[in-house]
Amino acid sequence: RHYSVRMDQRTGLLFRQLFESQSSTYTYLLADAQTREAVLIDPVLETVERDARLVEDLGLNLTIAVNTHCHADHITGTGLLKKRLPGCHSAISKDSGATADIHLKEGDRVTFGKYSLEARATPGHTDGCMTFVLNDQSMAFTGDALLIRGCGRTDFQQGCASALYESVHKKIFTLPGECLVYPAHDYTGQSVSTVDEERRLNPRLTKSLEEFVKIMNNLNLPKPKQIDVAVPANLVCGIQNV
Amino acid sequence: RHYSVRMDQRTGLLFRQLFESQSSTYTYLLADAQTREAVLIDPVLETVERDARLVEDLGLNLTIAVNTHCHADHITGTGLLKKRLPGCHSAISKDSGATADIHLKEGDRVTFGKYSLEARATPGHTDGCMTFVLNDQSMAFTGDALLIRGCGRTDFQQGCASALYESVHKKIFTLPGECLVYPAHDYTGQSVSTVDEERRLNPRLTKSLEEFVKIMNNLNLPKPKQIDVAVPANLVCGIQNV
Ligand SMILES: [Fe+2]
Ligand SMILES: [Fe+2]
Repeated sequence: RHYSVRMDQRTGLLFRQLFESQSSTYTYLLADAQTREAVLIDPVLETVERDARLVEDLGLNLTIAVNTHCHADHITGTGLLKKRLPGCHSAISKDSGATADIHLKEGDRVTFGKYSLEARATPGHTDGCMTFVLNDQSMAFTGDALLIRGCGRTDFQQGCASALYESVHKKIFTLPGECLVYPAHDYTGQSVSTVDEERRLNPRLTKSLEEFVKIMNNLNLPKPKQIDVAVPANLVCGIQNV
Repeated sequence: RHYSVRMDQRTGLLFRQLFESQSSTYTYLLADAQTREAVLIDPVLETVERDARLVEDLGLNLTIAVNTHCHADHITGTGLLKKRLPGCHSAISKDSGATADIHLKEGDRVTFGKYSLEARATPGHTDGCMTFVLNDQSMAFTGDALLIRGCGRTDFQQGCASALYESVHKKIFTLPGECLVYPAHDYTGQSVSTVDEERRLNPRLTKSLEEFVKIMNNLNLPKPKQIDVAVPANLVCGIQNV
């Protein structure tokens, strides 16, 4: 087994979790270590240079920069990445309403070498939210649909608590219990969870639909600081013309 | 292979990287998923409750909380963890001069279930720094000896640039290239590197010993804000009597 784990690192999946501290956003780099094809999930404008440099340092070929949804708390790095790394294409769900090179719908696959991410529509936080599931179902990138012991808010951007509840229960909690859950944000320094853990321990999503909707409709959160700048920018996949 | 990766998660090593944002410190939780025995590396006082709760939520039995060295930038959580989770013992190198239940020396092993961490003396940042290497050499917890594209400073706490250079080259760079490098800190949102990457890309440690010493002796960094509080506290393994 130890031998196979080593081999996995050398010839298999290359994986990096990256953090942007202003918006507490996680960006994920995945690559096929053999073909060097890479995908970046949820890049942030402020950390494009760090991410581009890592792609270059590791000798990777970034073909797709994809967003889980049209973010309200930061400007996406996809537009700038396309300039910085020619050959990189932007992707987002069709339902997000945002401009991008590739529009994804339920069941589409984002392929990099022998790996792929399956796009699952998980609306509720926004109507265009997607969860990306690695082809072996060992990892799910849940965006703001499912956070570690939490979930994204549902009080703007076509948010809908009952839709979010259904998305998480039907599209994420049905994955294998050991599937690792990698969210778009964490505000407590936690980096990963599992489907099994969130099924058992998520304080909101273990409740009934009725209770969940009540909780979500009574959060009374302040408006995100960057929303008026971030959403219009992200609807054109970030800053395209800089 | 996919099957064995899944099995690894279910019955093998449980691993969590945790972050404390004030001091940009990484804490690491490792456990044997079968026996539920767990080890925590470099816990921080401010995040003890988060970490203790995670240990409990995952049904783990924390037997050892270990520090890579006597930190100058934060107070260790080991003392408080011992109160919070009875059965937990503190550990640190003998050469650190700090109080602890267990004093480690070169070659000692910190065992949790079928796994163990090998203690390697890697002085230079402090004279008591240790790197902990997982028994299959797939992961190394390098403390402040080796950071991602960097290293700890050598201008206080018996720091010595030439000793650090030798420690990294003889005790860390000799590990397999694919061995994951998990540092005690990162200030740029990066979470992990590999031995191979640092051998090739570390801007300081790819230099000659002579150049390295020159770089380290001319950093002119400000004194860490917390040093006068943190070091005395950490010499008694944090707050023992709260
Ligand atoms: Fe969001
Ligand atoms: Fe240190």
